[in-house]
Amino acid sequence: MRWAEGFIAADWGTTNRRAYLVSGDGRCVDEMEDGKGVLSVPAGGFSDAVAEIRQRLGDKPLLLAGMVGSNRGWVEAPYVPCPAGLQEIARSLAWPEECTAIVPGVSWRDDDDADVMRGEETQILGALAAGLIPADALVCHPGTHNKWVRLQGGQITRFTTVMTGEMFNLLKEHSILADQLGEQAEPDAAFERGVRKALAGAAVTSELFTIRARFALGKRMADASSYASGLLIGADIGAGLDLADADARPILIGRPDLTRLYSAALTIAGREAVELDGEQAFLAGAKRIVELIDERR
Amino acid sequence: MRWAEGFIAADWGTTNRRAYLVSGDGRCVDEMEDGKGVLSVPAGGFSDAVAEIRQRLGDKPLLLAGMVGSNRGWVEAPYVPCPAGLQEIARSLAWPEECTAIVPGVSWRDDDDADVMRGEETQILGALAAGLIPADALVCHPGTHNKWVRLQGGQITRFTTVMTGEMFNLLKEHSILADQLGEQAEPDAAFERGVRKALAGAAVTSELFTIRARFALGKRMADASSYASGLLIGADIGAGLDLADADARPILIGRPDLTRLYSAALTIAGREAVELDGEQAFLAGAKRIVELIDERR
Repeated sequence: MRWAEGFIAADWGTTNRRAYLVSGDGRCVDEMEDGKGVLSVPAGGFSDAVAEIRQRLGDKPLLLAGMVGSNRGWVEAPYVPCPAGLQEIARSLAWPEECTAIVPGVSWRDDDDADVMRGEETQILGALAAGLIPADALVCHPGTHNKWVRLQGGQITRFTTVMTGEMFNLLKEHSILADQLGEQAEPDAAFERGVRKALAGAAVTSELFTIRARFALGKRMADASSYASGLLIGADIGAGLDLADADARPILIGRPDLTRLYSAALTIAGREAVELDGEQAFLAGAKRIVELIDERR
Repeated sequence: MRWAEGFIAADWGTTNRRAYLVSGDGRCVDEMEDGKGVLSVPAGGFSDAVAEIRQRLGDKPLLLAGMVGSNRGWVEAPYVPCPAGLQEIARSLAWPEECTAIVPGVSWRDDDDADVMRGEETQILGALAAGLIPADALVCHPGTHNKWVRLQGGQITRFTTVMTGEMFNLLKEHSILADQLGEQAEPDAAFERGVRKALAGAAVTSELFTIRARFALGKRMADASSYASGLLIGADIGAGLDLADADARPILIGRPDLTRLYSAALTIAGREAVELDGEQAFLAGAKRIVELIDERR
């Protein structure tokens, strides 16, 4: 049986999962999403959790990507070191059972440094396989852990993670600023002020406290979420653009609500970016990996 | 009755409180500490909570400083704007009851910026009143919210807060790095590496993720707490020294376990610092405020 005649691809993260049924002509014909993230599956429970996906979408070959392949997941699919393209990734799939493959993550390290990704590689290399981005590019993948990724010759050669999304969530859920950060961040004037402050080198954890200080002085900021987001994303792109050629257009891949904020911040930094939807990129990556599975059989 | 003939001074914060009985000759002759921070006192419960202090240490005039004077505390003692010295502070005490005074915090603001402190002013101006620091100085008060404070002519003229302690606690308690940050941070080689990275302008939230990446790659850092602390404190002093004259010796006031780390980081940055114990500074500040209360009666 050829996988490409019909398969399911699932992006299975820490806190939720999303699965797509892809028909033989490459179209997504059905999908499901639920909150059964890797951390909510009990030990020994992955076979059942996978069976649920097939009950819902059909008894098809199944390609899994994301944290399901980590040491907290079902079966560990060890990281593929840079340089890594889809060929290297397809050669390193983990096979917890027949007709079910798990995509490995990608790692980078030298004596002084280390980094890992798991899940983003499928989207980024998928966008490349679909011809949506060039073989040499700087890609930014916003999320809990934003990835800045250098592509060279169609391979991931270097990347760096910035914990922007996690920091924002920590501040929003557990910090002294929590009461001030309930609103959705928007690319508004406060966001721009935050981006500019961070790009100019202001200390983010100092600027953040001004939100608290204004509140204590009776001058609550209605747009505190946008300001905090601007500070964090401004510092993030300040770091990420270190990886960029001066004239390259960064490519943003991910959730549209996040790529929109990063695009706005990059514009403020004088860089026009391209935005691509992470879901489409994921499906493109899954399709290409499935072709490589069929070729290797 | 003159306060200076014998009084109680209490540093009453968000999560705990510490009270000292000071005799007529200025010595601390008894003290108490418990976990009854401002947030654990129910509405209407402050009279009883204060009575406990007097039952324990004696029926004396009582000077309270810290978050007990905030809008979450007993009675709000509004912030005194910069420039603020002990004279200005003594003029702005709040009096929730006879023989009980609450020290106000200090604020700074202009059109574009705002900052507040509450509790640190008593320690910093106390060290000044005791002749431990000069009337013109840069003071650093590490804690949940580190304060960099410029003293000019014996007054607080400008200050800036960096949320270093809170960030470290958020990472330690709620982040993906939580499992790696259980050890006590020490001024060791990993701490120095973190300080140097941050001083060189590295993105702290990117460097922090290398702790996670090393773990994922099977290369767990035994000294991750020190490295994370070095990164955060390095970025903190990088921001704080912007307030300093090039040749000034910063003065560190606070908990000795924290001033020790900041002193080590400042040494790495090429600046020798002076360390002063926050508790002694607090008592000196309380004594001077009490003298001013007596002078004004």
